[in-house]
Amino acid sequence: MTTYIFGHQNPDTDAISSAIIMADFEQQHGNKEAKAFRIGELGPETQYALDYFNVEVPEFLTDDLTGQDVILVDHNEFQQSAHNIEKANIRHVIDHHRIANFETAGPLYYRSEPVGCTATILYKMYNERNYEIRPEIAGLMVSAIISDSLLFKSPTCTQQDIDAAQALAKIANVDLQTYGLEMLKAGASTTNKTEDELLNTDAKSFSMGDYTVRIAQVNSVDVEEVFARQEALENAMNKASAENSYDTFILVVTDIINSDSKILVVGAEQEKIAQAFNTTLDNHTAFLPGVVSRKKQIVPPITEALS
Amino acid sequence: MTTYIFGHQNPDTDAISSAIIMADFEQQHGNKEAKAFRIGELGPETQYALDYFNVEVPEFLTDDLTGQDVILVDHNEFQQSAHNIEKANIRHVIDHHRIANFETAGPLYYRSEPVGCTATILYKMYNERNYEIRPEIAGLMVSAIISDSLLFKSPTCTQQDIDAAQALAKIANVDLQTYGLEMLKAGASTTNKTEDELLNTDAKSFSMGDYTVRIAQVNSVDVEEVFARQEALENAMNKASAENSYDTFILVVTDIINSDSKILVVGAEQEKIAQAFNTTLDNHTAFLPGVVSRKKQIVPPITEALS
Repeated sequence: MTTYIFGHQNPDTDAISSAIIMADFEQQHGNKEAKAFRIGELGPETQYALDYFNVEVPEFLTDDLTGQDVILVDHNEFQQSAHNIEKANIRHVIDHHRIANFETAGPLYYRSEPVGCTATILYKMYNERNYEIRPEIAGLMVSAIISDSLLFKSPTCTQQDIDAAQALAKIANVDLQTYGLEMLKAGASTTNKTEDELLNTDAKSFSMGDYTVRIAQVNSVDVEEVFARQEALENAMNKASAENSYDTFILVVTDIINSDSKILVVGAEQEKIAQAFNTTLDNHTAFLPGVVSRKKQIVPPITEALS
Repeated sequence: MTTYIFGHQNPDTDAISSAIIMADFEQQHGNKEAKAFRIGELGPETQYALDYFNVEVPEFLTDDLTGQDVILVDHNEFQQSAHNIEKANIRHVIDHHRIANFETAGPLYYRSEPVGCTATILYKMYNERNYEIRPEIAGLMVSAIISDSLLFKSPTCTQQDIDAAQALAKIANVDLQTYGLEMLKAGASTTNKTEDELLNTDAKSFSMGDYTVRIAQVNSVDVEEVFARQEALENAMNKASAENSYDTFILVVTDIINSDSKILVVGAEQEKIAQAFNTTLDNHTAFLPGVVSRKKQIVPPITEALS
């Protein structure tokens, strides 16, 4: 009977890599029916990592999970998981997120640690059992850690993630900075995306005082590449605002290498928004040094400024 | 800031022992504020174990857990836990049960394994870090494993539990069979209990066909000690049936040493109940070889016989 192993919907590099790694771990553990799956499409960053280490893309999960043996990696909340997950036999979970909306009928293996990446936990599991970490598995572990930690710059990154990545880079025969930057660039490339894609991939609406504020965020390794299209972006933002009654539309372009952001603002109260960050707008834009988190660094000051 | 460590309500020997053990583990790990608590009264079996190894009874938890750091052992479901557990910062869970009605705001350590006893997982954690297992800590681990596994006879017992108990018995300087039997006897003593206590400690009502059937279970190491009071028990069972409209009242006295049970039946359909177990009643009683589980071995055949 197959053991289905997969990460969350809208999979990132950790979700895909950890499924492949856990399937290898299970195989070494004697579970010959363990198999990695994915429940969403690969992004270009993940595709880059799989191509680099010559690893096959996991099969897209289409089987009904009712009554099937399942191992979840990099998630646990059922609404982020596969269809009918509540009817599966969840045997094992490896994760580094909070636990919520998760329930089983019987006892299981569950290993969660508050580190920056699921692959860091898997790395420890291999070492605890002295299992072989082949170069391509090490490569996927390194890729997942670089991805989740933005090359160790995210506030979620721990010393364990850094130590694991340094040890794994040797096995995978890559230079962390060189490979990491290339992989992140592959994922943060904005050249092939339309303005609407840039504005819709990660956007949320907020009620702030009397205003409806739309805030979209784009990760980039070349912020000016995005702003070369400023006029087209402003047109698209004004069009979306008219269609959806946004009072203000803010595009946050985050430089994932230097951990800064540059914002583009259209609509009402542009001056107040600039003041929220103790700056002024120059041609609708402002540079926000050290700002990377919408949730923690952008929404609160704007909410205060408009309330 | 104190780290509050405790097991479930109505604590058994694993719930109390694992809290004490985990507090010791955390101390060795450098968390000097770790402290074991209990959220219920000790049973005589647990008291016997603590007395034998000269370990203090954990303090009863009275503090408000809102915003406090907490480690849960031997449970996770909030309805089995302490008041305001949903407002605490749960940092770590060590458990061997299913996961349900459990949620955190942030990432945490969670270690669950489908073994017979939480103390078996803790034993592995000590070994993984080469922490010292002092004789009294080993004694509590052994006691918890013996208790949860009924001296290795429960269907939930795994080889890991057995191996751990054998290694720990040497450190604790006890003979497993001798100590285990004495400890279980201390918990299963029925001499100091009234008939009503015997009938109410672990009793459930069931609707079966047109009948309401009450089934109480008592663990014992001396079944005949209980049946020496058969007449008084029958009187109490008939009185309870009259007061609560039970059609049938069955007392299951389970011999935890030999893994058998003897039942006492009053009320309607006594013959059908005996037939359910392919036997006949002798003076309202029957011996049921190999039967220990109300849920799996008693309720289903009676349900079928009365439906």
